[in-house]
Amino acid sequence: MNDCIFCRIIAGEAPATILYADEQVTAFYDIHPITPVHILVVPNRHIESVNEVEEEDAKLLGHLVVVARHLAIANGLERRGYRLVINTGPDAGQSVFHLHLHLIGGRSMPFRFQ
Amino acid sequence: MNDCIFCRIIAGEAPATILYADEQVTAFYDIHPITPVHILVVPNRHIESVNEVEEEDAKLLGHLVVVARHLAIANGLERRGYRLVINTGPDAGQSVFHLHLHLIGGRSMPFRFQ
Repeated sequence: MNDCIFCRIIAGEAPATILYADEQVTAFYDIHPITPVHILVVPNRHIESVNEVEEEDAKLLGHLVVVARHLAIANGLERRGYRLVINTGPDAGQSVFHLHLHLIGGRSMPFRFQ
Repeated sequence: MNDCIFCRIIAGEAPATILYADEQVTAFYDIHPITPVHILVVPNRHIESVNEVEEEDAKLLGHLVVVARHLAIANGLERRGYRLVINTGPDAGQSVFHLHLHLIGGRSMPFRFQ
């Protein structure tokens, strides 16, 4: 059994509300939302983090952003705004080591932090 | 005169410390850093925000991420980690309306915020 939770969600072996899926990426709700809208967009292929990406992954990485944009519109965030975040490693608090793009929004989000 | 500050930096008409440049993207320090390392990676072509991107921009958007990864390594962030952020619209505090990817790191960065 694959012990990566995101690989298991993509394979339909672990529960999640799938919001979008195609041959390259899958999107579902974050189970610990920090904003009213908090969606993860992940590559179907297991890539541990941004530390592992190469130039040949550029189109896939950009597709994560384009899909997030469409999900932002579908969730009514186009005008108020939204933030896209990819965390890598301990200083950023990456907790699942399958690269994922956070789409967060639905309230004002300070960018400066403590 | 182009009144977009990032277009002017890319054209060499406004001052910035250019850290990387190629035919698609340019990287330079944020003038108001929120972390010890705070670099912006921007497309050379003027795109207002993620709201304007289309599927044909995917490779360019992914290239922003790949360049940020190389700059993260060059700045010693590979192991401690780093965060990539794209802010869109007022709720996210987007202040310059030329799409830009923030590379931030050099200290622990909480992801939950007030």
